[in-house]
Amino acid sequence: MAIYNPPLDEMRFMLNDVFDVEKFWQANENLAHVDMDTVNMVLEEMAKLSKNVLLPLNRTGDEEGATYQGDGVVTTPAGFKDAFKQYAEAGWIGLGGDPEYGGQGFPKMVTMLTEEMVFTVNQAFALYPNLSVGATLCLLASASEEQKQLYLEKMYSGQWSGTMCLTEPHAGTDLGIIKTKATPNDDGSYNISGTKIFITGGEHDLTENIIHLVLAKTPDAPEGSKGISLFVVPKFIVNEDGSLGERNTLAAGSIEHKMGIKGSATCVMNFDNAKGWMVGEENTGLASMFVMMNYERVTMGLQGLGGTELAYQNAAAYALDRAQGRSDTQIQSPEKPADQIIHHADVRRMLLNARANAEASRCFAMYVAKQLDESKFSVDPENAKAAAARVALLTPIAKAFLTDKALEATVDCQQVFGGHGYIREWGMEQIVRDTRISQIYEGANGIQALDLLGRKISRNNGKYLENFLAEIRDFVANMKADHEIKQATLDAAETIEELTTTVLTNISTRKSEINGCAVDYLHAMGYLCYAFMFAMMVEAAHDKEGAFYANKLKLATYFVGRILPRIKAHAEMVKTGSDPIMDFDLQYFEQNIS
Amino acid sequence: MAIYNPPLDEMRFMLNDVFDVEKFWQANENLAHVDMDTVNMVLEEMAKLSKNVLLPLNRTGDEEGATYQGDGVVTTPAGFKDAFKQYAEAGWIGLGGDPEYGGQGFPKMVTMLTEEMVFTVNQAFALYPNLSVGATLCLLASASEEQKQLYLEKMYSGQWSGTMCLTEPHAGTDLGIIKTKATPNDDGSYNISGTKIFITGGEHDLTENIIHLVLAKTPDAPEGSKGISLFVVPKFIVNEDGSLGERNTLAAGSIEHKMGIKGSATCVMNFDNAKGWMVGEENTGLASMFVMMNYERVTMGLQGLGGTELAYQNAAAYALDRAQGRSDTQIQSPEKPADQIIHHADVRRMLLNARANAEASRCFAMYVAKQLDESKFSVDPENAKAAAARVALLTPIAKAFLTDKALEATVDCQQVFGGHGYIREWGMEQIVRDTRISQIYEGANGIQALDLLGRKISRNNGKYLENFLAEIRDFVANMKADHEIKQATLDAAETIEELTTTVLTNISTRKSEINGCAVDYLHAMGYLCYAFMFAMMVEAAHDKEGAFYANKLKLATYFVGRILPRIKAHAEMVKTGSDPIMDFDLQYFEQNIS
Repeated sequence: MAIYNPPLDEMRFMLNDVFDVEKFWQANENLAHVDMDTVNMVLEEMAKLSKNVLLPLNRTGDEEGATYQGDGVVTTPAGFKDAFKQYAEAGWIGLGGDPEYGGQGFPKMVTMLTEEMVFTVNQAFALYPNLSVGATLCLLASASEEQKQLYLEKMYSGQWSGTMCLTEPHAGTDLGIIKTKATPNDDGSYNISGTKIFITGGEHDLTENIIHLVLAKTPDAPEGSKGISLFVVPKFIVNEDGSLGERNTLAAGSIEHKMGIKGSATCVMNFDNAKGWMVGEENTGLASMFVMMNYERVTMGLQGLGGTELAYQNAAAYALDRAQGRSDTQIQSPEKPADQIIHHADVRRMLLNARANAEASRCFAMYVAKQLDESKFSVDPENAKAAAARVALLTPIAKAFLTDKALEATVDCQQVFGGHGYIREWGMEQIVRDTRISQIYEGANGIQALDLLGRKISRNNGKYLENFLAEIRDFVANMKADHEIKQATLDAAETIEELTTTVLTNISTRKSEINGCAVDYLHAMGYLCYAFMFAMMVEAAHDKEGAFYANKLKLATYFVGRILPRIKAHAEMVKTGSDPIMDFDLQYFEQNIS
Repeated sequence: MAIYNPPLDEMRFMLNDVFDVEKFWQANENLAHVDMDTVNMVLEEMAKLSKNVLLPLNRTGDEEGATYQGDGVVTTPAGFKDAFKQYAEAGWIGLGGDPEYGGQGFPKMVTMLTEEMVFTVNQAFALYPNLSVGATLCLLASASEEQKQLYLEKMYSGQWSGTMCLTEPHAGTDLGIIKTKATPNDDGSYNISGTKIFITGGEHDLTENIIHLVLAKTPDAPEGSKGISLFVVPKFIVNEDGSLGERNTLAAGSIEHKMGIKGSATCVMNFDNAKGWMVGEENTGLASMFVMMNYERVTMGLQGLGGTELAYQNAAAYALDRAQGRSDTQIQSPEKPADQIIHHADVRRMLLNARANAEASRCFAMYVAKQLDESKFSVDPENAKAAAARVALLTPIAKAFLTDKALEATVDCQQVFGGHGYIREWGMEQIVRDTRISQIYEGANGIQALDLLGRKISRNNGKYLENFLAEIRDFVANMKADHEIKQATLDAAETIEELTTTVLTNISTRKSEINGCAVDYLHAMGYLCYAFMFAMMVEAAHDKEGAFYANKLKLATYFVGRILPRIKAHAEMVKTGSDPIMDFDLQYFEQNIS
């Protein structure tokens, strides 16, 4: 079975050394109740649960998969039900929930670390509670007080779960063209009819009720994304006293057979005049969804981090054990016919790429989580607004860059195993298959890039970016550490600044420039963000004793010399722009199609 | 089902326009019998077989997989047996075989194109004939006349198949430490005992006999790779008259469950005093294997090309059909709620990356195939020697760069499908899973890189490379086309020249420099090779009429601006070198391991 050693030291390094959370929390009266002693206990509990309960279900869950039994019944893999019960009863689903409705009120900087552990050991399992949390965030932000009272507590407790029903067969990225209809009834409820696909946890055997949040169009709604409303549509209608009433007219029609996350039930959901209630105002459904999207998208980044972490730990263990060939420097095991492959520089290169990615992405997710907490809990509205702007800028990077780099890292770690990496029993190929989805769902990574370059950079003329660059330069200027990461970060910031000027200029004359440059722009930005994170880690580590801290400086050196140079390639490709893409006519793409 | 339109136009562009094969063949009396009319017929026949017979078995073969029935019996997926029979009876296995033993004597420049088609439509199936071909190449180069008479004809005809038994549980990359023993008998035969793993086609139901080529150690053989001999060990011992004799004492113990190529039986083979006969001289087994390795490694590059081609064609078809959002330039389908996604520049970027990779890799494989043909058939020994040197230099690139880029391309094409790309029924995720193996087997890509930078560059002080760079510069200097690829290719050549000087200097003081820089060096070289290929394609196309040729120039422009810039990132990472890798002590990689 795969090994997993929860990286609590790394997490504490983030909390204490890099982000000095106690100071941050103390300075904010809404967070002053959080203390590191409790947080340490929380992390240790999740470390145990993830390692002892969820990790052992990772491969069996992949082998068995979720199954559709016919008649709308979906079964999760053996062990998932018990594990979910333990997970729910320990209070994990409501960890970051609103205390007014039974949540525990922990900030994102804490919940993201527990989420990381769950995604590391079992990506498929993680999605069940994760979607519930997403649904509660959405209800909390947009639902009426009555709806919150009715649903939140039981969703926090895991008695009920939640889903997000957005996609339809013909409408994925483009939600403006959905067809699901909501017809008003006299009693204030609506009848919901339509088919939704790719619904994670749309049906399963883990909870007694499933609360679907469904995007649909009311009669006479405006066309496109401005005519979409959000509805809460429970599997069992909930009576006013919170007890379960009649079965609603909705059901899973089938589940998908997928490349990975096979233990997660991805359902086709058929709504046939199902009873639902509007959440928030009419025609503001997309906005309500996007409230929770920022949280979810950072969490997808964590899924990538989880895949990387598990792949790294297992690849490092394999490289320390497997003996092939001799070290280039000196024979390490003269009594044996070969040395361990950890002595080969190319094996280390793959491991270090993965580890640098894991550490930078954890730091970046924490940085974004801090802004999320600031925007949610800050007593100073100006502060909250600035943090929200930073979140808006960085969320697409947290989702797309972290998951793109995660695929690279998991593939590299699989490669360390040679032929064994391709064999199911070693578990590495599953990590690659599972991690792959994180680049696709919750807004495909290309869409994230469009969001970054289009909405977050171009539409406000680079203002969010300006502030971010100013913060980076300010941080580096005040660094006490003496390390090459400083100059490298400043250079990267300059690369991005120049690049942004170029691309904003080109946009004015090339209609497809944003679309054609967005992904490379996002990757260039991602490397800058990682450089900034390494600068923060170096500053936190440089004056402390011991190998743990010394290695932080070494990993930053590795990053500067062996990873960061890629920023220039992406910058050059963005400067080339979209012309060579759009220069082809449509027939070019048709010519090879029979 | 996946679509496939065999790219015969592209193949003819290679044969006629880029490489002017008729002239090349006419100039060489050993190849003067080959003509384009026959070759066209050959390609058209394979186009039909691959599209009509092998493609329909691709997904069913993946779903069913090869199965181990117990007692050493392995069954291939439904349809494979009939398809293999058709394949064999049409003479495809002996297409490039020696006419003296029933082969058809076609050069590699032709067989590689038929191999491409087979790998495109069904990677798992392709491996059965492919391993047979590999075994015949090995026998042809090293076996005695008697052995050739006994085995080759029936292997060419597909009555029997062949395997390569190299890897053992503890010995993959490092074959010097294998344990399989060969004990001589009085009659000149040997008793072979040991366990081999990862044996493609080690057992199956396609042929009446299976001819295993097995690496083993004779008693008192020198240690390491200098003490390895090669043996032919048939499943059924072959009588002198070619009829089948008694069952040999060898059997499949199990088959592996893998990430992909599930229709291919990957066997654990147990040899228990199995009767075998030495091939070639004692202790020269590895050298005998390497004779066929150059052919096989180019073929693995073709597997990558095949994956890319199938992924591209299906992604392009999907992008032409799927409607989401509106085009940035102008509304394309005003009567519909959305435009086809082919109008989005980012979708085109992914498609163009894949297509540029397919075309450059096909051209590169053809270029290497030409050198292979030159080295095998040339009447001028000097010519043959120079071509062999070029093959030696480029083979690791043909294997590793083509397959690394292929994974990128197939992942990109999967991404074009959004969520549907992750669902099995669409077939895209299978292409990714199947293609992934090509980076791992036949010498993992990291090992290819070591071969390039260590054996092919460093050991002869860059002399092979000098000759190659001279050819590139000479070609560009003589180009009649006016296109940015010219300067870009010269720049890339200069980058590589400088880089090589740097790395050869650093090697003298850093023991792990080759190992730590090899993969990035190989990638930088790969981009130079692709640039050279695009220069050749531009030169072949620039003075010809029609959209087909005009698009070649456009794709080269795309390559220069949107792909080639990566060469600089790899160059910079090589210049950084191995120090930041080796600066970590062993404990660093242990600290997270429980």
